[in-house]
Amino acid sequence: MDSGGGDQQQLVAEGVPSVAAAAVLVSSTPLPEDTPVVKGYDFNEGIDYHKLFETYKNSGFQATNFGLAVEEINKMLAARDQPLAEEDALSEDEFTRRRSACTVFLGYTSNMASAGVRDTIRFLVQHRMVDCVVTTAGGVEEDLIKCLAPTYVGSFELDGASLRKRGINRIGNLLVPNDNYCKFEDWVMPILDKMVVEQAEQGTLWSPSRITARLGEEIADPSSVLYWAARNRIPVFSPALTDGSLGDMMFFHSYKRPGLVVDILSDLRRLNSMAIKAQSTGMVIIGGGLVKHHICNANLMRNGADYSVFLNTAAEFDGSDSGARPDEAVSWGKIRPAAKAVKICAEASLVFPLLVGETFARHHFSRTGERREGAAAANGPAP
Amino acid sequence: MDSGGGDQQQLVAEGVPSVAAAAVLVSSTPLPEDTPVVKGYDFNEGIDYHKLFETYKNSGFQATNFGLAVEEINKMLAARDQPLAEEDALSEDEFTRRRSACTVFLGYTSNMASAGVRDTIRFLVQHRMVDCVVTTAGGVEEDLIKCLAPTYVGSFELDGASLRKRGINRIGNLLVPNDNYCKFEDWVMPILDKMVVEQAEQGTLWSPSRITARLGEEIADPSSVLYWAARNRIPVFSPALTDGSLGDMMFFHSYKRPGLVVDILSDLRRLNSMAIKAQSTGMVIIGGGLVKHHICNANLMRNGADYSVFLNTAAEFDGSDSGARPDEAVSWGKIRPAAKAVKICAEASLVFPLLVGETFARHHFSRTGERREGAAAANGPAP
Amino acid sequence: MDSGGGDQQQLVAEGVPSVAAAAVLVSSTPLPEDTPVVKGYDFNEGIDYHKLFETYKNSGFQATNFGLAVEEINKMLAARDQPLAEEDALSEDEFTRRRSACTVFLGYTSNMASAGVRDTIRFLVQHRMVDCVVTTAGGVEEDLIKCLAPTYVGSFELDGASLRKRGINRIGNLLVPNDNYCKFEDWVMPILDKMVVEQAEQGTLWSPSRITARLGEEIADPSSVLYWAARNRIPVFSPALTDGSLGDMMFFHSYKRPGLVVDILSDLRRLNSMAIKAQSTGMVIIGGGLVKHHICNANLMRNGADYSVFLNTAAEFDGSDSGARPDEAVSWGKIRPAAKAVKICAEASLVFPLLVGETFARHHFSRTGERREGAAAANGPAP
Amino acid sequence: MDSGGGDQQQLVAEGVPSVAAAAVLVSSTPLPEDTPVVKGYDFNEGIDYHKLFETYKNSGFQATNFGLAVEEINKMLAARDQPLAEEDALSEDEFTRRRSACTVFLGYTSNMASAGVRDTIRFLVQHRMVDCVVTTAGGVEEDLIKCLAPTYVGSFELDGASLRKRGINRIGNLLVPNDNYCKFEDWVMPILDKMVVEQAEQGTLWSPSRITARLGEEIADPSSVLYWAARNRIPVFSPALTDGSLGDMMFFHSYKRPGLVVDILSDLRRLNSMAIKAQSTGMVIIGGGLVKHHICNANLMRNGADYSVFLNTAAEFDGSDSGARPDEAVSWGKIRPAAKAVKICAEASLVFPLLVGETFARHHFSRTGERREGAAAANGPAP
Repeated sequence: MDSGGGDQQQLVAEGVPSVAAAAVLVSSTPLPEDTPVVKGYDFNEGIDYHKLFETYKNSGFQATNFGLAVEEINKMLAARDQPLAEEDALSEDEFTRRRSACTVFLGYTSNMASAGVRDTIRFLVQHRMVDCVVTTAGGVEEDLIKCLAPTYVGSFELDGASLRKRGINRIGNLLVPNDNYCKFEDWVMPILDKMVVEQAEQGTLWSPSRITARLGEEIADPSSVLYWAARNRIPVFSPALTDGSLGDMMFFHSYKRPGLVVDILSDLRRLNSMAIKAQSTGMVIIGGGLVKHHICNANLMRNGADYSVFLNTAAEFDGSDSGARPDEAVSWGKIRPAAKAVKICAEASLVFPLLVGETFARHHFSRTGERREGAAAANGPAP
Repeated sequence: MDSGGGDQQQLVAEGVPSVAAAAVLVSSTPLPEDTPVVKGYDFNEGIDYHKLFETYKNSGFQATNFGLAVEEINKMLAARDQPLAEEDALSEDEFTRRRSACTVFLGYTSNMASAGVRDTIRFLVQHRMVDCVVTTAGGVEEDLIKCLAPTYVGSFELDGASLRKRGINRIGNLLVPNDNYCKFEDWVMPILDKMVVEQAEQGTLWSPSRITARLGEEIADPSSVLYWAARNRIPVFSPALTDGSLGDMMFFHSYKRPGLVVDILSDLRRLNSMAIKAQSTGMVIIGGGLVKHHICNANLMRNGADYSVFLNTAAEFDGSDSGARPDEAVSWGKIRPAAKAVKICAEASLVFPLLVGETFARHHFSRTGERREGAAAANGPAP
Repeated sequence: MDSGGGDQQQLVAEGVPSVAAAAVLVSSTPLPEDTPVVKGYDFNEGIDYHKLFETYKNSGFQATNFGLAVEEINKMLAARDQPLAEEDALSEDEFTRRRSACTVFLGYTSNMASAGVRDTIRFLVQHRMVDCVVTTAGGVEEDLIKCLAPTYVGSFELDGASLRKRGINRIGNLLVPNDNYCKFEDWVMPILDKMVVEQAEQGTLWSPSRITARLGEEIADPSSVLYWAARNRIPVFSPALTDGSLGDMMFFHSYKRPGLVVDILSDLRRLNSMAIKAQSTGMVIIGGGLVKHHICNANLMRNGADYSVFLNTAAEFDGSDSGARPDEAVSWGKIRPAAKAVKICAEASLVFPLLVGETFARHHFSRTGERREGAAAANGPAP
Repeated sequence: MDSGGGDQQQLVAEGVPSVAAAAVLVSSTPLPEDTPVVKGYDFNEGIDYHKLFETYKNSGFQATNFGLAVEEINKMLAARDQPLAEEDALSEDEFTRRRSACTVFLGYTSNMASAGVRDTIRFLVQHRMVDCVVTTAGGVEEDLIKCLAPTYVGSFELDGASLRKRGINRIGNLLVPNDNYCKFEDWVMPILDKMVVEQAEQGTLWSPSRITARLGEEIADPSSVLYWAARNRIPVFSPALTDGSLGDMMFFHSYKRPGLVVDILSDLRRLNSMAIKAQSTGMVIIGGGLVKHHICNANLMRNGADYSVFLNTAAEFDGSDSGARPDEAVSWGKIRPAAKAVKICAEASLVFPLLVGETFARHHFSRTGERREGAAAANGPAP
């Protein structure tokens, strides 16, 4: 189109400074024909969230990243449906052997276990849709403690000193009575007793993943992530497992029965071996810090993950790994250069269940043959 | 429960330092019985997003704030269904008269019009679910320009110098060919011609809301927010209307026909009068800056809004109004002290359509008698 | 260096999976010889902040961006010291004529005027180190109100309802008694009286920049930014000038004496003309929203600014102009492709005074011949 | 002052709606007389950064938090100058015994070691101004690797795939050639050999703090934090020490000589004992995640830290411990209710050196009797 040039001349003839007319009315080179057009959902078609989410990829900003993340996870799921090649010699134990053609690493921080996201994670682990979990100490213990007593909804603004006086611990806008941790002590101390005995008598070398497996075996509550991880032989790694209430209990326990060893190096070998022996790998990482780095670093061992989705609130300007764009991980060899890794900049309590709904859960129900949500029944005008 | 105390004594007896045992095993005062328990959605019940969103209020973090925002907007909608008292003398013109018992102010920044959120906003304006719109210059012109040529999906990483060479403007991960702005020039210049004539001949005092109404009348495209705003007599305020492409055009036009006046004080009187004469008010504000402050300030004129939902990515630590918690607006009299104003900390392209789905859209379809989405048809196991 | 390859072979010989050894021990292509090495300040050299800031460019993350911003502003200052070419015909009025070979646009949001940053800004305007100011309504009125009564330091956590009961307005962790706004009413109403009279009698077309100039003339307090802007003929643009307390007063005043017109289009012509006629331009913009976009858009009229520094807390992921990297402005022609625009991701109250200290203030004192801070007197060991 | 009421009546008499007049002109209850007035630095007094920083407490927003953090750290330093009471039986080893009346815990994330902040941290450790360090694996190894080869300044925008091809790893805007990690392998492998031998022959139970001490002893470079930590017997805890390059090397080494155990429970006892036996404690924590939680959790063992300063970019809205306000830690008993803990919301590369300059470094030079920076020599007008 040449209107730009013609218009410019006319404007200049009318007195507009030519630099301004030329700068404002620069004409464009056409975009490639297949460049997607921005278009949002039209609610006149009724309330159909699946259709709505299908529009997200072309809605812009983080909606677009959500749409791209759905695609990326669906690629992981398609890879998982590929036939599993015979495993080579790398497999070290039954716990960390390859189960599908795409080994999916799920990482999440402690607050996810405190929030309702725990139930979404449990669904993934229950139905063996992930192969390896990496979380923090809080991610382990909050899951267990919720089996003993509830976590409550409070507010971000409650006064810390008053809460302490009442023995109520705050996690963002959630509240955990300290009695819950006392109950945890009652529950975990006898297990620690047994672990020390096993170390002494059977020479067990305890590592975080072995401890989380044991705790998962002991907890008799199918609402727990660890319950299902243990039953499904999905390892739960947590290299700084002492950093939380479980550490407090181990610390206390060490006065009664000193000598328990918690080795993190054997776990690293387990984790890295999972990455190395995988046919392909996917990373789904909620939050930053240790869990993000640990999964990425394991994937360096195989020269990068094939599929990657990060979901967190951190930004890159501070040089943290937490906030780094996936492209930074590409420079390290933690994500393959050809991969289309996606970062959604969003808070996970609001977004992770939706992401699972559009990917893992849809895939699950499509395989189990259970009923699908019907567009026919969506809220809105008749088709 | 007294286990805390007993356990403490036992631990100390075993050698644990008493300060540690006492600090860790503090016992709790019970929380009020009606304190909600954290519980996320169980995907084993199938993929039913409406049910899932109902769990958000008790899921923690921003999921909780989403749930609270749904409640707050539903209160606005319930208030709108109340009978409309006879209006007093304050109404200044047909454009800004009271239409329902709750006057809803919708604010959004320019990027929302660039993204797919525009279609959600258009749905609200089309169906008269809001009474007043405040947006930026970009919020006005991006809506119009999309009627002339599409906005495209690109990426955050595209190189600025290369784009400039090609005449492609970037907005986050969106792309707008500069030709779109040339087309806008072609479209708007004749309208500006007429406006200058009307000013001269009929003494029209143009203000941003009068200009946006005129532009809405002129645009012949029902995909446009302004199209519906004009037809539904919903004023669109934009006090800094010159700050964008429309300003560029007015600037250029001023060389050809100088003298057009764009008065912002008459608009302020219009806007403030809407707030003052309202029976009750609701604020739904996406983003910060001018649009947020302008709506809140108008609500100061009535000693505060009754219902408020803020959705943005800004934080309070920098002392900006953009990032301020609603409680800061309470101190100014912009939100009533008894109100339960909610801020969702989230990026709107991903969250605003969902918020509308659970509130305005459900309300709309429940009134129009159109079909609702059926839990019976949700994806998942039979009940 | 070939150790990478040799080491890899050895590791593989020892049993390390070759994919892991190869991925971890990838060898590097050398970086260009002049690539700067990361090196922080050594406090053993004593406490010499100027020296410390000189190390920032090579310290990484936002320290690096601070160092780059210092360079960018110093380029503006060097350009200002160039001889001023004779001005062409574009100059519209004495207020907006070119004064130096680099026209510097300073933008800041309202919170900067509320905070102590106001005093830094006043220093810049007092000593004519900037040529044009763009701010919000709050940026105008908070400056004036501080001449009438103080703003106080409070806290981010104070309860809004209690504050409202006491008539205390909160701005982040600052407090402004509402009486200050009552005093502002007393002060400004007689000025508005006069403005209406001048409009009626002399045909004055009031615009935000004309109003801010008048207010600056009226305020008799050299602590004010507007005081110096008026005396130094530096225009203060504020296109949405009605959006704040000044708007409240104009709104009230309109009942007594209706008809005051506040035209924003004539101001746009003033602002754009300043950009067009400038020999070169610099932009120093604190915060986002209107002030950032308005200055950038004016610089589009000259096909881009030469020197640009943005300082704000916004992020790009939400597609806002506020958070966009400078490279987005390059795509629009608002910053020249060859420019080395810098964004510092930081909160300005903490960083802007330091940036001024290392740039404008040093330049000022180097020109005035006043004493420099002496490295000789720095805190630390003898050389 | 009663002007508010009188003005209201007059406005209403002039036609202003009374609700508006009343809401806008609410009168104030006076603030307490000692409420500090906002006042920024006046650069007309010359460039004297120490004076400037003294104004920060009353400058608002994060400048105020910086000022409060300076006070808080100076309280730690004053407490350290108190006489040291005789230590009780808790001290477990020479490494973790109490050295002053205030045990200061310093935490920092890996990116701080990569950036120039490392040199500031080294100054603190060199001069024994902190008693305990907690960092991540990267925080350990980046410090060591910098002794072997430099880290470079790059940019946030460099392309990951190209960098990988060249073997250059990116950390924000920093670059680390992969050869540096190869050199690290060369350096650390023989040390790991010796460690395995010592485990086998002397029964050494290696833990992260024992390993970091050994690495510090081995590194012969006084630019290293670990060098000084080892020499000054300051323990460096890093519970997830395997999560990084050091882990990669241990993993590789495990093929050659399997069996090395890295126990984290003995370290927890060391760390907690330091907190319990301390007379008073201070926490200075840069960044979030593991390092923040680990130090805070240790301080729970003594029912809370006395002095706390957090410096990070995380926000509370996502319910993370990283972004939590100090008041959340009060609810857990990790900070004492009477403490005046401070969080500065800022990126540390830009702010931590300044914080040290105004606190630790000033205190150091005031004690060593070395020269102070002189106000007399500041840049600016004569007094």
